[in-house]
Amino acid sequence: MARWEPNATERLAVAALELFAERGYENTTVIDIAQRAGLTKSTFFRHFQDKREVLFGRGTMNELLAEAIAAAPAAATPLEAVAYALDELGRQAFTPARRAFAARRRAVIAANQELQEREALKGLGLIASMADALGRRGVPALTASVAAELGALAWKIAYERWSDTLDGDDFGVIARQTLAEVRAASPQC
Amino acid sequence: MARWEPNATERLAVAALELFAERGYENTTVIDIAQRAGLTKSTFFRHFQDKREVLFGRGTMNELLAEAIAAAPAAATPLEAVAYALDELGRQAFTPARRAFAARRRAVIAANQELQEREALKGLGLIASMADALGRRGVPALTASVAAELGALAWKIAYERWSDTLDGDDFGVIARQTLAEVRAASPQC
Repeated sequence: MARWEPNATERLAVAALELFAERGYENTTVIDIAQRAGLTKSTFFRHFQDKREVLFGRGTMNELLAEAIAAAPAAATPLEAVAYALDELGRQAFTPARRAFAARRRAVIAANQELQEREALKGLGLIASMADALGRRGVPALTASVAAELGALAWKIAYERWSDTLDGDDFGVIARQTLAEVRAASPQC
Repeated sequence: MARWEPNATERLAVAALELFAERGYENTTVIDIAQRAGLTKSTFFRHFQDKREVLFGRGTMNELLAEAIAAAPAAATPLEAVAYALDELGRQAFTPARRAFAARRRAVIAANQELQEREALKGLGLIASMADALGRRGVPALTASVAAELGALAWKIAYERWSDTLDGDDFGVIARQTLAEVRAASPQC
């Protein structure tokens, strides 16, 4: 019988990141990660499909973005609706407490091609979620795709700026500023 | 001694695609691919780092894009320079003869997550190549990134439109049209 493990997802992600940094992604097994987190292998696989997923699988990010875009004011332009979604990321996912984790996570991913590939595919999924959510607001498909791509670019740059230092502005503030810069760098602006 | 195998890259890619379609990516080995192509496993690994790479590893696409962007007229805007690169793709990579291959390749990739991940990371590499090439033309970094992202979006949509049918316009024509649509769907247009 599966018993409830408080915070299992978070504990597994923190343990995995420690181990990947200490001995490398290739030299770390799922069993190692579970043991470091004080959990079992089967608990790991209840939360994540494979070893790579532990750095990506919080799984709620797609829904969080979609809900924030749906909840944006009716008068918001597509890019303004995306800005609301980035705000929500700052409130719920990229909180100040996760800043140090984010910096270590970036370094671990940068060192391993498999992790980079998983991250790249997750990125496409997040773009599709944003575009779909904009489509449900009545935004034409291509306009939705462009806004989602620009939002993702702003997000990626903002995430790097945010996690490059341990102090400085919160993610939401950096993301809004970066999105404004991306918008100003778009054709015909 | 490695002897020269005419067209080895192309033969391996065609053999791999056939096998992936027939029996699935997971059930195909590198030895199977080499045998089907009439080549050896060591020839395979002289051309590709691993099994996944056989559908992506022509390896010259980054250079092709960078050279086309460098060669675009001095007066071209960033997005116009990207349009020249898409033209060049149509002339050198996505030729009419490759149309049927492209459709089968899309179907095989859509059926396998590992291939999707490799494709996603390759896509980021192509975007970075375009942005770097624009940067060498003196385009500011963020403007270059935005133009590269929009170019990649147009490319992706154009590739789907082009490979959806076996006749119809050439890739370059479709890509130019799609890029114009993407531009028109950008903020403030």
